[in-house]
Amino acid sequence: AGVVMATEANLDILRANSLLPDDLSLDDLGADDLLLVVRAESESAAQDALERVDELLVRRSAAAGADSAGDDPTGIDYHPKSLRGGLKSLPEAVWVLISTPGRFAAGVAQEALESGRHVFLYSDNVSIEDEARLKGEARERGLLVMGPDCGTAMVQGVGLGFANRVRRGPIGIVAAAGTGLQAVATRVHSLGHGVSHALGTGGRDLSEAVGGATALQGLDLLARDPETRVVVLVSKPPAPAVASRVLAAARGCGKPVVVTFSGLTPPVERVGNVRFARGLDEAARMAVEAVEDSSEIDSRDPAAGYLRGLFSGGTLALEVLHGLAVFLDPVFSNLHADGVSTLDDPGRSRAHTILDLGADEFTVGRLHPMIDPDLRNRRVLQESADPEVALILLDVVLGEGAHANPAEALAPVVRKALERTGLEIVVLLMGTEEDPQNLEEQGALLGQAGALIFRTNEQVIGYVAGRVGPATQALKVQVPLETLTTPFAAVNVGLEMFYSSLVDQEQRAVHVDWRPPAGGNERLAAILKKLKS
Amino acid sequence: AGVVMATEANLDILRANSLLPDDLSLDDLGADDLLLVVRAESESAAQDALERVDELLVRRSAAAGADSAGDDPTGIDYHPKSLRGGLKSLPEAVWVLISTPGRFAAGVAQEALESGRHVFLYSDNVSIEDEARLKGEARERGLLVMGPDCGTAMVQGVGLGFANRVRRGPIGIVAAAGTGLQAVATRVHSLGHGVSHALGTGGRDLSEAVGGATALQGLDLLARDPETRVVVLVSKPPAPAVASRVLAAARGCGKPVVVTFSGLTPPVERVGNVRFARGLDEAARMAVEAVEDSSEIDSRDPAAGYLRGLFSGGTLALEVLHGLAVFLDPVFSNLHADGVSTLDDPGRSRAHTILDLGADEFTVGRLHPMIDPDLRNRRVLQESADPEVALILLDVVLGEGAHANPAEALAPVVRKALERTGLEIVVLLMGTEEDPQNLEEQGALLGQAGALIFRTNEQVIGYVAGRVGPATQALKVQVPLETLTTPFAAVNVGLEMFYSSLVDQEQRAVHVDWRPPAGGNERLAAILKKLKS
Repeated sequence: AGVVMATEANLDILRANSLLPDDLSLDDLGADDLLLVVRAESESAAQDALERVDELLVRRSAAAGADSAGDDPTGIDYHPKSLRGGLKSLPEAVWVLISTPGRFAAGVAQEALESGRHVFLYSDNVSIEDEARLKGEARERGLLVMGPDCGTAMVQGVGLGFANRVRRGPIGIVAAAGTGLQAVATRVHSLGHGVSHALGTGGRDLSEAVGGATALQGLDLLARDPETRVVVLVSKPPAPAVASRVLAAARGCGKPVVVTFSGLTPPVERVGNVRFARGLDEAARMAVEAVEDSSEIDSRDPAAGYLRGLFSGGTLALEVLHGLAVFLDPVFSNLHADGVSTLDDPGRSRAHTILDLGADEFTVGRLHPMIDPDLRNRRVLQESADPEVALILLDVVLGEGAHANPAEALAPVVRKALERTGLEIVVLLMGTEEDPQNLEEQGALLGQAGALIFRTNEQVIGYVAGRVGPATQALKVQVPLETLTTPFAAVNVGLEMFYSSLVDQEQRAVHVDWRPPAGGNERLAAILKKLKS
Repeated sequence: AGVVMATEANLDILRANSLLPDDLSLDDLGADDLLLVVRAESESAAQDALERVDELLVRRSAAAGADSAGDDPTGIDYHPKSLRGGLKSLPEAVWVLISTPGRFAAGVAQEALESGRHVFLYSDNVSIEDEARLKGEARERGLLVMGPDCGTAMVQGVGLGFANRVRRGPIGIVAAAGTGLQAVATRVHSLGHGVSHALGTGGRDLSEAVGGATALQGLDLLARDPETRVVVLVSKPPAPAVASRVLAAARGCGKPVVVTFSGLTPPVERVGNVRFARGLDEAARMAVEAVEDSSEIDSRDPAAGYLRGLFSGGTLALEVLHGLAVFLDPVFSNLHADGVSTLDDPGRSRAHTILDLGADEFTVGRLHPMIDPDLRNRRVLQESADPEVALILLDVVLGEGAHANPAEALAPVVRKALERTGLEIVVLLMGTEEDPQNLEEQGALLGQAGALIFRTNEQVIGYVAGRVGPATQALKVQVPLETLTTPFAAVNVGLEMFYSSLVDQEQRAVHVDWRPPAGGNERLAAILKKLKS
C-alpha cells in the first residue's frame, strides 16, 4: 500500500513500485492531495482495504469535528480558528509564526503583515515571487519576514522553530541558513559566550529576486541594538549584486561583522570591520575574538567611481578578483571567476574591471608585460582618461627575468595619469630586497610619482574594497528597535509543536487551530471514489 | 602601419583599425606568420614603405647569417644552433629551458626528455594533448616537465624564468601558478624564512587531461628532499578527480602541506597534515608556522570504501560537502556544489554520497527529519547493507522543536547497522548542555551504540577526510633526489634573456641560437609579395 501526498516525486515513487494504476487520471491531482493506493491479491481484498480506509477517515473526521482539546499537551482548552482570532486573544503578540502548508502560507503571512506583526515563516514551498512581494511589503512597514523555509531564530533568548538553548550575550546572528544559525549559536555558547538575537532570513533571501531584503533589515537592526557588539552573517554565496549591497551594509554598520558564505571564502581574512570566516565553526571563533576587538571602525562610504585593475601577474589578478568580486558589482575581467562577467572586448574596460595583461589575448606577438611595459602603460593612460574611474590598481613584479627597472618605466605614466583630479593609483610591489631591481628604490620612484604602494595582495584587497564599491543604502523604514525589547508574545499558525515549544520556554503564545480555507475532506473523498471505480 | 603575428585576435585588431585589405586572402595565414601592413596616402608611398621593409629584412637576414656574437651581453662567442649542440657543449646540463614559439616547443621538449633532461617549458600555446603526452613520457623516465606556460621556478636557489631572489630555507613550493609561486616565495622571504626549491607545473597541470602529473612528482620529490620541511601547493581549483589524488599524495607525504586553491577554500583550516590557506599571503604565513610544528603526522591510507552522509541539517550537509568534496571523487549529493555530481535518484546513493534529508524531495508529505527520524533510520540500514560503504555520517541536532530524544530513536539503528563488520558510524552531535534533550545523555546513548561522536563540523571533516578517499599512489618512477643536489647547469632554447639571467646568477648555462626548423624568411617573403600585388 502507498499513502502519499500526490507530488510528482511521490507519483514517480509509486510508479517505480508498481503502485500507480495505468488508467488513473492524474490531471486533477496536486501536491496537496492525499493519495491512498492498495495493491492486493484480489479485487475483493482491495475493496475491503479501501472500505476500511473510508471507515477510519469517517471516524477521524468526526473526532476533528468535536473538541480536540484532549490532544493538547498544554492543557489549554481554547484555540482560535484564524489568525485574526489568535491576535484578538493575544493582541500584544509581536510575532506570528507560520507553518501551514506552503500554498496557504503567503496568505497568512500577508494577513500578519497587514496587522503590523513580524513574521517567522517556517513553511516551505512558498514561491519566490510571493517571498519577494511579502518582503517588499514588510520593508515598507518596517516589519521582518524571516523565511519562507526559515527553520530557526532566536529573539530575546526565545527560540522559534528549531532552536538550541543558548546563553545570551553580545553576538548577533543574521542567517540565511537554518542549521548554519544553530551551528554558530551552539559554538558561540560552547566557547563561553552568548547570543543577543539570531534572525533567520530563509535560504533564498540573498538571491537576486529577493535582494537580501531581510538580511539588510537584520544587519541594520542588530547594528542599532545596544546588546549586540558583533554581528555574524551566514549564507550560501549571494547573488553578486546582493553580495555587494549586503557587504556595503556590513562595512557601514559600525560593528565588527563576521561573514561566512558557504563555499565562497575570499582570499583575505579581514577587510576593515568585515571578517571572512571559512566555515561555521571559524565564524563563531572569529565572532568571539571580535567581541574583544576595540579597534576603530571606518564606516565612511567609498569613493564613487570604478576600479580598473591592470595586472601583469595572472595569479595575482585572479586572487584580487576573488577578493574584490564580493564587494563590487558588476565586475568584468578576462579571467573567469564566480560572480565575474567576461569582457567582450578586452581592449575596453567596463564598470569595475580587473585584467590579466599576461593572458594570451594580450601577449600574442609581444613579450610578457613583466618584460615589456608598453601595453600596460598605454592602458593606464586610457583608463585615467575615463572620468568614471576612481582607482587604478597595478602590480609591479621584480626579480630575475622581469624588466630591469619597471618603476622607472611606469612612474611617468603614473604622474601623467594622476594629473586628473579624483584619481588614485595603487601599486602592489612584489619582490625582495635582494632582487636585482632594488626594491626600495622601485617603491620610492613610484611613491614619488604619486602611487600608493602595498606589498601584499591582502593589503591591496583590504584597501581597495574600502575605496570603491557601493555606498551603504539607508533603509526607508527601519525595523523599530522595540521589536527586540517589547516582551515576547506570539501567535502560532500551523504546527502545534512550535506552540508547545514556546509554552515550554514559558513564553506567551496562542495557537491557532488552523484549517485550509476550502477544507480537505471533500477532495479526499473524490479521490477515494476514483480509486474504487 | 601594423606589424603583428597573424593571429585571429590580431587580425581583428587590424580589421577594426581599417588596416586589413578586404581582398587579402587569410587562408594561408597562421599565428606564426608575421604580417606587415601599411596604409598610405598614395600607392607609390605604400610601395616605397614596403620596399624599405624588404631592404631592412634583407639586411637583418644577412646579419643573422653572420656571427651574432656582437649582440651577446655575456661576451660568449659561440652559441650552438640546436639543443643537441647545446647539450654537447654542456653535457652536465640537468635542465633544458625552452621558450621557443609554442608550435615548436613540444618538439624541443621531446628532444630534451629523450636526452634524459628535465624541462622548464616557458612557452605557451602548447596544446594540452602535447602537454599530457610529454608529461606521460617524463613520468616514465622520472623526469620533470615544468610547464608549458611555466613562468617561474627555483631549483637549488637558482631562479628560472621570472624569479625573485629569495633566501634559501625549509619551505618547498609546488605551484601551477607563476606569480602565485612568486608571491608565496617573496612573502616567505619577508617573513624571515626561506625556500628550498620551488617547482612550477604550468597552469593546466591539475586539469583532468593532465592529471596533476608534475604536481604529483613535485610533491613526491619535495617529500623526500631532506632540505624541505614544509610543502606549499598553489593552484587554481583542480579537476575533482585530480584534487582527490593530489590531496591523497599530500596526506601521505609525511610533511606538513599548505594548500591554496585560488577561489576554493574548504570550510576547514586543517585536515591532518594538510592545511588550507585562503590565499597566497596566508599560505606563506601558514607555511612558516608549520615549520615549527613538530606534531606527529598520520600518513596511513584511509579505509577502502565509500562515505554516506545522511544529514537532517541542510547547511551542515553543505558545509561537510564543501569540506570533503576536494578529498573524494566522485561525490554525489542532492545539494549543488562545485565538483559534486547530482544524484539522479536521491533514493539510491552512489560512490561517496552526502544527502540533505531535509530537502524538499525528502520532506514533501512528511515532517522534517529533525522531528521524524523514520526516513533516515531506514536509510541508515539501507546504506549499511551496502558492502562498499565504509563510513556512515549522521548529524543529530538537539534543541527546541527537534525530536525529544533523537539518540534513543537512532541508537538501535546504529547498533543494527554496526553488526556488519568494517563499517564505521560517525555522528555530529549539535547542541548545548542546556538543550531539553540532555546533550550528555544523547552522546552517551549514541556512543554506547558504537557511534563515534564529534561536536563540530571541523572535527567531522578532519576525521572523515582521513578515513575515506583514495590511497596515496606511489609513482612508478620517482624523480631522482640528485636532481636537487647535482650542481646546476642548463641549456636555454629560446629567449636569450633567460640565459642572461642564469649568467647573472653565476650559473653554468649554454644558450642555443635556435631558429624555426623550416626557416622563416621564405614565408615572410611570400606574404610581402601578396601584400604588394
